[in-house]
Amino acid sequence: MTQSLLKVLSGEPVNPPPVWFMRQAGRHLPEYMKIRATARDFIDFCFSPNKAAEVTLQPIRRYDMDAAILFADILLVPIALGRDVRFVKGTGPVLDPLKVEDIAKLGNDMDVLKPVYETVSRVRAELDDHKTLIGFCGGPWTVATYMIEGRGSPTKEIPKRFAYDHIQEMDELLSRLADASADYLIEQAKAGADALKIFESWAEGLPPQQFDRLVIAPTRQIIDRVRAAGITKPIIGFPRGAGLNALRYARELDIQCCAAGTDVPLKAFRQSVPDGMAIQGNLDPLALRMGGDVLRHAVQNVLDTASGPHIFNLGHGVTPDVKIENVHAVISHIRTGSGNYV
Amino acid sequence: MTQSLLKVLSGEPVNPPPVWFMRQAGRHLPEYMKIRATARDFIDFCFSPNKAAEVTLQPIRRYDMDAAILFADILLVPIALGRDVRFVKGTGPVLDPLKVEDIAKLGNDMDVLKPVYETVSRVRAELDDHKTLIGFCGGPWTVATYMIEGRGSPTKEIPKRFAYDHIQEMDELLSRLADASADYLIEQAKAGADALKIFESWAEGLPPQQFDRLVIAPTRQIIDRVRAAGITKPIIGFPRGAGLNALRYARELDIQCCAAGTDVPLKAFRQSVPDGMAIQGNLDPLALRMGGDVLRHAVQNVLDTASGPHIFNLGHGVTPDVKIENVHAVISHIRTGSGNYV
Repeated sequence: MTQSLLKVLSGEPVNPPPVWFMRQAGRHLPEYMKIRATARDFIDFCFSPNKAAEVTLQPIRRYDMDAAILFADILLVPIALGRDVRFVKGTGPVLDPLKVEDIAKLGNDMDVLKPVYETVSRVRAELDDHKTLIGFCGGPWTVATYMIEGRGSPTKEIPKRFAYDHIQEMDELLSRLADASADYLIEQAKAGADALKIFESWAEGLPPQQFDRLVIAPTRQIIDRVRAAGITKPIIGFPRGAGLNALRYARELDIQCCAAGTDVPLKAFRQSVPDGMAIQGNLDPLALRMGGDVLRHAVQNVLDTASGPHIFNLGHGVTPDVKIENVHAVISHIRTGSGNYV
Repeated sequence: MTQSLLKVLSGEPVNPPPVWFMRQAGRHLPEYMKIRATARDFIDFCFSPNKAAEVTLQPIRRYDMDAAILFADILLVPIALGRDVRFVKGTGPVLDPLKVEDIAKLGNDMDVLKPVYETVSRVRAELDDHKTLIGFCGGPWTVATYMIEGRGSPTKEIPKRFAYDHIQEMDELLSRLADASADYLIEQAKAGADALKIFESWAEGLPPQQFDRLVIAPTRQIIDRVRAAGITKPIIGFPRGAGLNALRYARELDIQCCAAGTDVPLKAFRQSVPDGMAIQGNLDPLALRMGGDVLRHAVQNVLDTASGPHIFNLGHGVTPDVKIENVHAVISHIRTGSGNYV
């Protein structure tokens, strides 16, 4: 096995740990902004294999990251289910809020996602053999919160109420999302993705019983369907903000890595996840943005507290105001023990 | 000792557990709305001892709760520090956002809080001996997020950046808040509060090192100052949403009870907090609002998973659309094993 990240995902510690950053292809990179400006809108961008492949590869070229993550969005799957998704500048994603009666009418046009698989195969063809390509989808609950509220929901109050008020329909929605997400991951794996990640970005604040029902159950459905299709590639689960519920998520699901958000103390986390499970995370993007000694200490703290198989990453995405020099410095720090922080 | 809640706070399990609800005095009660309508605004309401005492006592009369919680707000302390705080209907609290240069100019007019102590002593005088009166303050970090952003902050992005960008000033702000909050709790205790609670409502999403600096350190400062004043009354800490960081909070602070938000699996929580520490929580207010079998199962789940010294409560405040019959049913369920859920 030549990919250090896959080695970690197989349960073997690697020193120094492989590193990649969530949203490493993004607005902090001038070369990204240049390509972004040529796309009609964000969805058109995601569905343009030449452009999406190019920005997926940019951070590998600039930073020599150990992994590329497919450039796409967790809200492409609702499009396959026939929902209208727009990205509005300054606001983020906007969807027509899903009504209870819309759930029975959801479509299943998985062909709209084909350009994504084309992106995956282009990236894999261009990427060095020892670099890992990570495919992904959103967690069903997280995607459902956007569909129900029609946009990012700070409190998740509306989808949480929906989940209590319309039990059968909510379970149906999550099941539809789980099947579509699984099929989406299966095709990404077939097109060349080496590992798969499930982003449950809004895993926080759910009562344990609702977490089991709304997060763990549909995620298990995804993984079972992926495995039933003969895909054995490793899966990274990311139950962001789930607190103690993340430990059940790590224990009960067939995942090879549990990713940690910024709020997770890695030492306690390592002791709580199953033996030999890889962990990923969890540098604070705001420390990355700060740079200087704050960043140096934060990086050292992650290195000091993460033992066992570990993938170095942020706990959340790179912010647009991060300095490129500081990304270089972090990678140098990880690989050589020191970095030129600014 | 005749108060069952104080017995639990001393580390002794009580069966059935004592019960009270966060925001038990609130908009779901018609008798509350009646008094509320006589106040000029929310702050005037909090600073009117006769009105505040009356609504504090209402849920005890109606529901026979085991504890009354002082009717006040965590944003009264910023008023003592000279900041302008308004409550805008439909928006919630609005403050003039604190600038870095404002921190050195903060006042310290603790006399404005005197009506609150008058409320405490009136309530204690009217309350049965076996009922507990809980006083409270906000956690310094939580109060600081409101002061810095000028209102409730869904992502806490602005205060989190402030904490990195202005390290010395942020620590100064938290220290000022800690001292004022401690003095506020000391006076509440002297006026008759039997137990004290620190509401760190926005404890989620902080990197562990920032959690230690922004939450644990100033909370320790509060507790040390309260204890130094000779107040030995039990303290309940509530690091809502803090996930694994809550375990360090429970272990490192001189608190007698750690309260759990809705997202906490009580069984795992019990196993993780120090031996003999009381826990409180964590019924989902949205389950309380749902009623019926959903609520019955949720209540039973809390009773089944919370062992040791436990105070039954919600994981968050009562919502205005809760049915009074269901509050009665929960209390009956806890005390007799069954309730008439609607």
